[in-house]
Amino acid sequence: MAKDTAGPLRLLRETHEDRVLTVLRTQGAMTRAQLAERTGLSRATLSSIVQELLAADALTETAIDDTTSRGRGRPVTQLTLNASGGLALGMDLGHRFIQVTIANVAHEVVGSAGTDCSERTPWSKRLELALDLADTLASDNGISLSALAGVGVGVVGPVSETGGHRQPSRATRIHLVRDGLTERFGVPVYVDNNTRLAALGEAIWGAGAGLQNVLYLRLSYGVGGGLVLGGHLFSGAGGAAGELGHITVDPRGPKCVCGGRGCLERYVSLAAILEECGVRRFDEVLRRLADGDRAVRTVISTAGTRIGEVLAAACNTVNPETVVIGGELAAAGASLLDPIRDAVRKHTHNQVRHGLQIAPAALGHDDAARGGIALVLRRSALLAGYPAAPADPDEAAATRDRIPDLG
Amino acid sequence: MAKDTAGPLRLLRETHEDRVLTVLRTQGAMTRAQLAERTGLSRATLSSIVQELLAADALTETAIDDTTSRGRGRPVTQLTLNASGGLALGMDLGHRFIQVTIANVAHEVVGSAGTDCSERTPWSKRLELALDLADTLASDNGISLSALAGVGVGVVGPVSETGGHRQPSRATRIHLVRDGLTERFGVPVYVDNNTRLAALGEAIWGAGAGLQNVLYLRLSYGVGGGLVLGGHLFSGAGGAAGELGHITVDPRGPKCVCGGRGCLERYVSLAAILEECGVRRFDEVLRRLADGDRAVRTVISTAGTRIGEVLAAACNTVNPETVVIGGELAAAGASLLDPIRDAVRKHTHNQVRHGLQIAPAALGHDDAARGGIALVLRRSALLAGYPAAPADPDEAAATRDRIPDLG
Repeated sequence: MAKDTAGPLRLLRETHEDRVLTVLRTQGAMTRAQLAERTGLSRATLSSIVQELLAADALTETAIDDTTSRGRGRPVTQLTLNASGGLALGMDLGHRFIQVTIANVAHEVVGSAGTDCSERTPWSKRLELALDLADTLASDNGISLSALAGVGVGVVGPVSETGGHRQPSRATRIHLVRDGLTERFGVPVYVDNNTRLAALGEAIWGAGAGLQNVLYLRLSYGVGGGLVLGGHLFSGAGGAAGELGHITVDPRGPKCVCGGRGCLERYVSLAAILEECGVRRFDEVLRRLADGDRAVRTVISTAGTRIGEVLAAACNTVNPETVVIGGELAAAGASLLDPIRDAVRKHTHNQVRHGLQIAPAALGHDDAARGGIALVLRRSALLAGYPAAPADPDEAAATRDRIPDLG
Repeated sequence: MAKDTAGPLRLLRETHEDRVLTVLRTQGAMTRAQLAERTGLSRATLSSIVQELLAADALTETAIDDTTSRGRGRPVTQLTLNASGGLALGMDLGHRFIQVTIANVAHEVVGSAGTDCSERTPWSKRLELALDLADTLASDNGISLSALAGVGVGVVGPVSETGGHRQPSRATRIHLVRDGLTERFGVPVYVDNNTRLAALGEAIWGAGAGLQNVLYLRLSYGVGGGLVLGGHLFSGAGGAAGELGHITVDPRGPKCVCGGRGCLERYVSLAAILEECGVRRFDEVLRRLADGDRAVRTVISTAGTRIGEVLAAACNTVNPETVVIGGELAAAGASLLDPIRDAVRKHTHNQVRHGLQIAPAALGHDDAARGGIALVLRRSALLAGYPAAPADPDEAAATRDRIPDLG
């Protein structure tokens, strides 16, 4: 059982509840009869789910004035998400910045704040900075963090370019973050790779909002990604689904730290682009692009074609509704997106290409923090119904520990 | 709602029931308490599922002699799959052969039979041949087809090399098959691409049995595939997930009928292999391979490398537990599989490569027919619980109609 509950089955199990919550979130308050109709669940199934959600304070029930029933029978009630019933804390402990966001069970963001840090900032200090931000947010918004539903945290994987700074290993970081947060809040803490959480954030609040199958690519110092299928973060067998930066561009290309060869990341990471353009900062690349610098334009366009070819393979595999392009490089706009779109169009199956959107990311710095919130909200509502779900924070974190070694 | 229920959400909804059925199928009869423990479902949820499964004749309940209870309280009962309660009929209407398989709700195959046909055999005749096979199987095994749970049918997509034979369009075929089977049996009929059904069959009964995430590649006259995620066939946004034959091998390669360029299918289809080897039949390729023919060995090895490079991209995207290689070309054995494995190893991310199996398909001609049975068994058990599930065969078939245009 241990294996099964840690795998995709656990995520799949959340669907009934998730469907109820999604309908209430997107369509507002409604009666049980309306909810049954719109979720397509049987009365019996719906009844047991609603009971659990009410018990978990995720829903509230209020009597409504029903003129059609004329006082006969049971009073008609409406169900609605309990906006004050559960708060979720999302954190992103990135390479160079820290972001903290708080949202309620209705997926409304209560507040968000961030601060820069250095790549050398120790992890204990990062956690302290994040907790300070959370406290400030809480007092600014007049809310208490004493009754959180949970905390979802994105952490960077050890990316090669920071290897020299002797940061603690991935496992050490995760334990440090998890223990610190569990001690402070006493609620379940979910830890995942922050790129994957950004994918979930974009799929729920951002460029993929309302869609079921979203492929996310982040173009930054590292090139990573995430895969949201059926509205849930899909991990794959080893937690590495969506690692698009390590798809091969050239089988005869240079060796990569991932063990592969000629990986996309080697050609289109921010470092590679800066080197090819012969500049030191990405805003200089953007300035030259705006000035019509032909050499820089070619570098970006070639990168776009390579990215598009890799995305085409990924799209032919999973046939998503949308591809979301995030990370600093996305700021190159049409100079990058147009060649990406051309290459994807050229190298996908008719039915994969049909209706496929390729959109820039819509969220800002809080993308991964929002993804952390989504992890919490989708899991916390389930605790009442599923004893196998992570009531024990250690077990919860353990199931999320299989994050990619490479950011 | 129409969109949501037709998409991955519908499949995800089946999970509770599926979990109960899987535990009973793999671990045998047990009490409700044992079932609750092993499925990880709450008593309330399990109780409503068991009630629905009993009502649908998918389970039977028998009193057992419980010496520990010493006659106090309610008698203890055991739940078991009702092997005689539901039969599912699976059919594969392929290019050159027709296969029919019958199984019970316990996933035990009752009987299977096949017959060859010509590519020119009209579809009405194929259906007639399939129905004859079904009747013969039923009478040989002393069973009645009057109370089927449903029929799952795999049909080929229009593959280019048969384009000259003026077969009816995909939509016409599907309607013909669906209407004929609905009229004959009066039960839900599910139609899908037969390669995708083969993927499901292999994931449940074959080389991927017991695994959750299986990538299937079929190497035949066409090169297709299917993706099983979390134990379910994953369709993607347009029903084309797993179309691995149309991933680009060479961006500057020749145009493909799919609208792409330099697709894998152009290089490793059976027709391409035969042409490169300069022979007319594949068994001649196998004979020369066994004889140590160096030119043929190189053709197969080069094909393996190309296949492996494409599979690596697909594996980096979804991180499956196993890749299953089916179709005639798989008969080339290690000459093909070794270069596939080498290329996959070389071009996958560490965590994707770790533990990844690449195995030849384990089922025979009845792979897609078994996949059809799996579709029926996973859906029919749900009819009682989910009014949104396909009680109406037309609606059921409509939700499965989004199959790839290219087989």
